[in-house]
Amino acid sequence: MNTFGENIRLTIFGESHGEAIGMVLDGFPAGEQIELDRLREELKRRAPGGAETVSPRKERDEPEFLSGIFNDHTTGAPLCAIIRNTDVDSSSYHPELPRPGHADLAAQIKFKGRADFRGGGAFSGRLTAPMVLAGALCKQALERRRVSVQARILSVGGVDRSAEDFDYAVHKEILEARSVGDSVGGVVECVASGVPAGIGGLMFGGMESRIAQALYAIPGVKGVEFGAGFEIAKMRGTQANDPIVTENGVVFTETNHAGGINGGITNGMPLVLRCAFRPTPSISREQKTVDLMKKENTTIRTLGRHDPCIVPRALPVVEAMVAFCLLDAMCEPR
Amino acid sequence: MNTFGENIRLTIFGESHGEAIGMVLDGFPAGEQIELDRLREELKRRAPGGAETVSPRKERDEPEFLSGIFNDHTTGAPLCAIIRNTDVDSSSYHPELPRPGHADLAAQIKFKGRADFRGGGAFSGRLTAPMVLAGALCKQALERRRVSVQARILSVGGVDRSAEDFDYAVHKEILEARSVGDSVGGVVECVASGVPAGIGGLMFGGMESRIAQALYAIPGVKGVEFGAGFEIAKMRGTQANDPIVTENGVVFTETNHAGGINGGITNGMPLVLRCAFRPTPSISREQKTVDLMKKENTTIRTLGRHDPCIVPRALPVVEAMVAFCLLDAMCEPR
Amino acid sequence: MNTFGENIRLTIFGESHGEAIGMVLDGFPAGEQIELDRLREELKRRAPGGAETVSPRKERDEPEFLSGIFNDHTTGAPLCAIIRNTDVDSSSYHPELPRPGHADLAAQIKFKGRADFRGGGAFSGRLTAPMVLAGALCKQALERRRVSVQARILSVGGVDRSAEDFDYAVHKEILEARSVGDSVGGVVECVASGVPAGIGGLMFGGMESRIAQALYAIPGVKGVEFGAGFEIAKMRGTQANDPIVTENGVVFTETNHAGGINGGITNGMPLVLRCAFRPTPSISREQKTVDLMKKENTTIRTLGRHDPCIVPRALPVVEAMVAFCLLDAMCEPR
Amino acid sequence: MNTFGENIRLTIFGESHGEAIGMVLDGFPAGEQIELDRLREELKRRAPGGAETVSPRKERDEPEFLSGIFNDHTTGAPLCAIIRNTDVDSSSYHPELPRPGHADLAAQIKFKGRADFRGGGAFSGRLTAPMVLAGALCKQALERRRVSVQARILSVGGVDRSAEDFDYAVHKEILEARSVGDSVGGVVECVASGVPAGIGGLMFGGMESRIAQALYAIPGVKGVEFGAGFEIAKMRGTQANDPIVTENGVVFTETNHAGGINGGITNGMPLVLRCAFRPTPSISREQKTVDLMKKENTTIRTLGRHDPCIVPRALPVVEAMVAFCLLDAMCEPR
Repeated sequence: MNTFGENIRLTIFGESHGEAIGMVLDGFPAGEQIELDRLREELKRRAPGGAETVSPRKERDEPEFLSGIFNDHTTGAPLCAIIRNTDVDSSSYHPELPRPGHADLAAQIKFKGRADFRGGGAFSGRLTAPMVLAGALCKQALERRRVSVQARILSVGGVDRSAEDFDYAVHKEILEARSVGDSVGGVVECVASGVPAGIGGLMFGGMESRIAQALYAIPGVKGVEFGAGFEIAKMRGTQANDPIVTENGVVFTETNHAGGINGGITNGMPLVLRCAFRPTPSISREQKTVDLMKKENTTIRTLGRHDPCIVPRALPVVEAMVAFCLLDAMCEPR
Repeated sequence: MNTFGENIRLTIFGESHGEAIGMVLDGFPAGEQIELDRLREELKRRAPGGAETVSPRKERDEPEFLSGIFNDHTTGAPLCAIIRNTDVDSSSYHPELPRPGHADLAAQIKFKGRADFRGGGAFSGRLTAPMVLAGALCKQALERRRVSVQARILSVGGVDRSAEDFDYAVHKEILEARSVGDSVGGVVECVASGVPAGIGGLMFGGMESRIAQALYAIPGVKGVEFGAGFEIAKMRGTQANDPIVTENGVVFTETNHAGGINGGITNGMPLVLRCAFRPTPSISREQKTVDLMKKENTTIRTLGRHDPCIVPRALPVVEAMVAFCLLDAMCEPR
Repeated sequence: MNTFGENIRLTIFGESHGEAIGMVLDGFPAGEQIELDRLREELKRRAPGGAETVSPRKERDEPEFLSGIFNDHTTGAPLCAIIRNTDVDSSSYHPELPRPGHADLAAQIKFKGRADFRGGGAFSGRLTAPMVLAGALCKQALERRRVSVQARILSVGGVDRSAEDFDYAVHKEILEARSVGDSVGGVVECVASGVPAGIGGLMFGGMESRIAQALYAIPGVKGVEFGAGFEIAKMRGTQANDPIVTENGVVFTETNHAGGINGGITNGMPLVLRCAFRPTPSISREQKTVDLMKKENTTIRTLGRHDPCIVPRALPVVEAMVAFCLLDAMCEPR
Repeated sequence: MNTFGENIRLTIFGESHGEAIGMVLDGFPAGEQIELDRLREELKRRAPGGAETVSPRKERDEPEFLSGIFNDHTTGAPLCAIIRNTDVDSSSYHPELPRPGHADLAAQIKFKGRADFRGGGAFSGRLTAPMVLAGALCKQALERRRVSVQARILSVGGVDRSAEDFDYAVHKEILEARSVGDSVGGVVECVASGVPAGIGGLMFGGMESRIAQALYAIPGVKGVEFGAGFEIAKMRGTQANDPIVTENGVVFTETNHAGGINGGITNGMPLVLRCAFRPTPSISREQKTVDLMKKENTTIRTLGRHDPCIVPRALPVVEAMVAFCLLDAMCEPR
């Protein structure tokens, strides 16, 4: 299902080369002031065409608000916003040749050959634009509740934060991959500060469950971890347990291996998580595939204007999903 | 919310030292034959008291089926099963002293001091017993659909599969931790074979989203990854993309870095995932905490009969959550 | 699906002649005091065996609370309660002979012959016991929020409130029907007072939508109306519109044709609704049916101990469903 | 919540005088051919401006399809369609003067004065246009499954089907109400033929529960009944029970007092239901209201171009909701 959330419900729709993509936010609190300029800034962080290392496609990504906002404030009714698909070139897609690393093959089977295959259709990274739009609305509401959400690149390909001049090293890594018709992945870390203690729920309603569900909806994510994450598996309990202390009437933990969440409930510490992105599957190198019509082995080159690395553009998307989950959980039933 | 699933709905209830724990499966297909002996075997795999390296608590874990089964077959009506809490010793819990690494502090805030704190209450690892029960029912139904789900330990503490005599090394690692009043974590890998291509859904309904949501409901999980997982972030696209080939009329991929899932939809390859478990938070070493009544720093020792490592007992739990998600997705709307 | 509710989720399970029936309330507010004696009183109002005009079956209906209550207060974790099926006589049920007016035929088709047919299985009126249990918990929570919910009989068969000595007339009508091996239906009215203005939601989340969904889950309900109901269709707007007035700072309406709900949202006036119950389908008169094995026309007499009229016992059930919907809506997201 | 449905999810958004209204259908089967001309015909049946007895407003109601359709077939991805709001005159709305019979007062309280009050905002009858759009898509899919859904007027004001020349009598009744600045209500009956036996679910998932929830989302509905409806409350069991018979291998019932549904599950007979519509609340007569700013009693005249009776335009809306519920239930999990 394309609808997500317990108290606020986010529905995302659209296909890469269809008329428009968009989202509906149902249950968003009434009376929240919306600053449209800042929404557009967030969309720009995600949009291609902005730097040497990303796709030269121009996605104008100008949102149209159809409902739910009146006099610059949310009305409490479902808020729908759409983004038209404009700079679209559907000439280079061949439904009979599924692209390795893409959802083409799986989608054809699921939708009985009826999926809109152009540009990856509903599986396209373009669908992260309405995610960012929803997240930007949530971030403005969270700000007023003194919660901030911030993502950063932790690594790209073989380059991590231990590198000298990390930004430059990342830039070089991406350009190098592109120069050989290849692509690279990376890891994004996201921290949310100011999250109140006591939000989330039991079992399947725990914050990790909800956030992981949201993050795995982002195309290309193959790993999600919280706090010390996979490293915690190598620790001893004495090391992993965060000591509880109090100072000036505030109770907190000395370390934050739990990433701000115990038993699915926030504990007042910053929420910390990381997610791993695969290298962009669209590369210009020749790759093995199968001609589904002729039922024989063949090869394909994914032409078109593609990012050699989606990680820099993924930052606002990760923030968006985390922000949505936090606002959703903070709006829990009375 | 404690209810999970799209087409089959699993509701889990209970508290560690309450009357009983249990689960309701709603929407489970009618007419599935249920072999009760094999259900009990699955529960035994999870139960403590079975080996030197696990808790000496005796949890009899005898399930009572209250509804939904008639003449050894499912009726199509909601299936409820419960497990009584028997070998319970509530003497050693102190609600004013939150245990580090546990949900105690977060739960007190969320439930305004009303949570049943005994034995971790609704946050207890004991709640994995109804998970296993539900999963065992799903596994029997999956078997008839030729799908198998199998988990194994990948590492415990510092010991991984590269170790000589892995089982013995794991055993030693756990005993050694226990001998010093400490605990260890580990990583579990789960593989599902025979999964048909084309199940799952778009966005938030993708298989990774659904399975991750379920796995993070297991107490102690701090990381979940699919296919190549976090390693994929270091790869190039040429390496990460799974080449698509055909042989004898079957289309498959030469490698399986995607872990059997593209764009949230299964592609017919085995589903592969891993999850990281933290060391058991209950350790007998003195730890820092805060007396919430007196509002001052103090220390606590978590007495009681605890596992130095939950990883071995976690295998049927991970299988259960994966099995549930697969059957749920295979029962998708027509 | 057997799960219902937006903010509190009610799951009902069980079959008439299975081990037990019961319910899970998930999301019920933490810290609500529960008076068990008064819960039992509510169950008695629904139970058969209490009067001359109802079934002589003895349903002890003693609830067992398995989770979610600790020290007489709700814990915030899912609350499960069950009622054992005791006075059960399964000898007189023949799955091949669907009983007219019952769900037998429809259920056999839906569940491919696997439904537990004994006593109507999951379709039995017995499933209203967990409804009443859930409702009684909600009523106690509503009382503390100054909301009361009260149902009364409006008519039974041909006897309505215009009759002299209504209670006696109803009694006579029921006994007369029973004396000829027949049954009668009736109409129940329910009024909720003290409901705050502004609860409910848009569209499918409107109070009428939610309450109607719940009421139609009660076996035997074939009509539901709010305020002036079907009569409003004959009115003019001048008559149907409730004039809005203010007195001593309070805004209210002079009439209440809307039944306390406009556009799905409560307006602060008492909530008024009625529902129509069909005559009990189980009657001792010979009725036409089909032998599904032999595929030929035949007849059936529904023996067993049945109510000639379920309307008196339905009062706490209607109250329960309305109470649940009100508490659920009052616990709406912040 | 504005999202509805078990297997197909319908989300409706928009406000009467905002940019656009619309809907998202998620889970609609892939590969359904869509005839756009026939969709437009359905929208015309609902649109005002078509006859002497309805509002002179021109609502062009031209749908734009943004996603989910490719080459005239559904893709399986969420289908979003919008309708721009054009012929809008917002001059005559005064938020401080709640209109009797409307949701104005309730909405102001719920949404803390932030609701878009113009034209009734999200509570406007205009929101039935996306309902019709969704329903028209469902009707085309149902046709291919040999199910038809047809509504008709049963009564308007005091005129019912027993009247000579019913259509003319209805026409006269409406014009007469309008001539005195008043409005009339009525009753709509809807019959669905060809519905397969065995669809629907237990308890809250029963067909009556689902259809009633949907119908009560239509503005102005105050009563919903199935089969014999409220009349069944006056019957005896011998009369109400539908005798089960077989002829030429087909099992059916001789009468249809159950309206095609037993225990929430369809029984193969035509589905029959009725719903009561209140008179249009917008009338040009002076009515009592309260000035919420000055907090004093006053009067209001609802100017603007309003229908003296919405019943004729409601027919496709009722059909839409029934069609959606049927297709949703027919797409049940495997």
